Amino acid sequence: VAEIDRGAPAVVLVETSHPENLGAAARVLANFGLGDLRLVAPQTAPDDPRAVAVAAAGARLLASARVFPTLDAALADRTRVWATTALERTLEKPVTGPRALGPELGRPGTALVFGPERTGLRYEHLERCDGMVHIPTEPECRALNLAQAVGLLAWEWRSAGPTPPSRLPEPAPRALQQELLRDVDATLERSGWRMEPNLRVRTLRNLHTALLRAGFTTNEVRTLRGLLRALARAPRA
Amino acid sequence: VAEIDRGAPAVVLVETSHPENLGAAARVLANFGLGDLRLVAPQTAPDDPRAVAVAAAGARLLASARVFPTLDAALADRTRVWATTALERTLEKPVTGPRALGPELGRPGTALVFGPERTGLRYEHLERCDGMVHIPTEPECRALNLAQAVGLLAWEWRSAGPTPPSRLPEPAPRALQQELLRDVDATLERSGWRMEPNLRVRTLRNLHTALLRAGFTTNEVRTLRGLLRALARAPRA
Repeated sequence: VAEIDRGAPAVVLVETSHPENLGAAARVLANFGLGDLRLVAPQTAPDDPRAVAVAAAGARLLASARVFPTLDAALADRTRVWATTALERTLEKPVTGPRALGPELGRPGTALVFGPERTGLRYEHLERCDGMVHIPTEPECRALNLAQAVGLLAWEWRSAGPTPPSRLPEPAPRALQQELLRDVDATLERSGWRMEPNLRVRTLRNLHTALLRAGFTTNEVRTLRGLLRALARAPRA
Repeated sequence: VAEIDRGAPAVVLVETSHPENLGAAARVLANFGLGDLRLVAPQTAPDDPRAVAVAAAGARLLASARVFPTLDAALADRTRVWATTALERTLEKPVTGPRALGPELGRPGTALVFGPERTGLRYEHLERCDGMVHIPTEPECRALNLAQAVGLLAWEWRSAGPTPPSRLPEPAPRALQQELLRDVDATLERSGWRMEPNLRVRTLRNLHTALLRAGFTTNEVRTLRGLLRALARAPRA
């Protein structure tokens, strides 16, 4: 038995449709020793008999999976979030490959997020992540089955070398980061900030991306939120 | 698109039972660019609609899969054969892991063999292989789904570094090696060699293992077979 001398990421499946994929994902996670499965708005019940049959010895993990209404809720306690994407996306976030990601998945508070079978993760999901992992495939047969992608990254976690210590302070949990982003938006709103609606949406997205990437610690988030409250109370010039 | 600057192994599935596994294996092989799929005595038809549906964009590869009655027939043109095993076996053959196997799978004439879902490869299959690859899993959830094992090793082939040149001469194709083994057995038989039946079977197996491991070249096999014929013609002492 190999000793796993590192943390294990939470695995988050968003809007999974096919019970067989849910079962196969749970089975391969159990095969490789990953025990924290989270389902966001699943489109099939985790106790569907087809899912349970395919899960085989992973049925216990499937039964213990936690269900969340939103990705934010599933990520609330996480500090580092990786999104899987089939496409190259043009977001200002780091993109890595499975081999390089393996050791990163051992960091405490990590989550690995997989999208719906047909569409993959949408922009609203990707903007909540710190970085993206892309599994290279053949151009004429690009689409990897969901459970295969889960298995491959679980294997890369399991077979990775030790996780190097981080040179950065521990980021605040996702729930706190999201509260900061909401405070920023609300402060701008109250300040009377005006912009053409499309441009406004893009500007806020870019701002959120930049603020998330900063990896603010819990203390830094508290300081920033205090400053925003002070700004809101300040008399208008 | 990543350039694959190495050979691609033939993938051999022995007595696969579940059409979904056949389809899922074809799909992930196509995803990762492996194009030589061989089926030994499949227990489900490769054109079963369930297999074709699960294969998705890998349906073309599934349709092009060649079917063989025996493992020997499927391996006839191969020179290097790796067997996947879930169990640690006590055979005098090298055992390796998926990561170390990746570059080896790029050697010309390589085959990678997967067993039936329920039993895995049996002794009669393993004795025909040069070495075994074992995918480590958790003790309480050991059994990896067939298509997951196929996907994992296809990925290790694809993501491996360049294959180092072999320091050994190119072995003869499997069909020739098997003819040599049959000649050895027949020569012993005709010589009046006697032994307690169980011991006889074990002795022949050990002899076959040793002869296969030698990696005789085509010329060496011819020389050895000529010597055996000369022995057979020699007058009894």
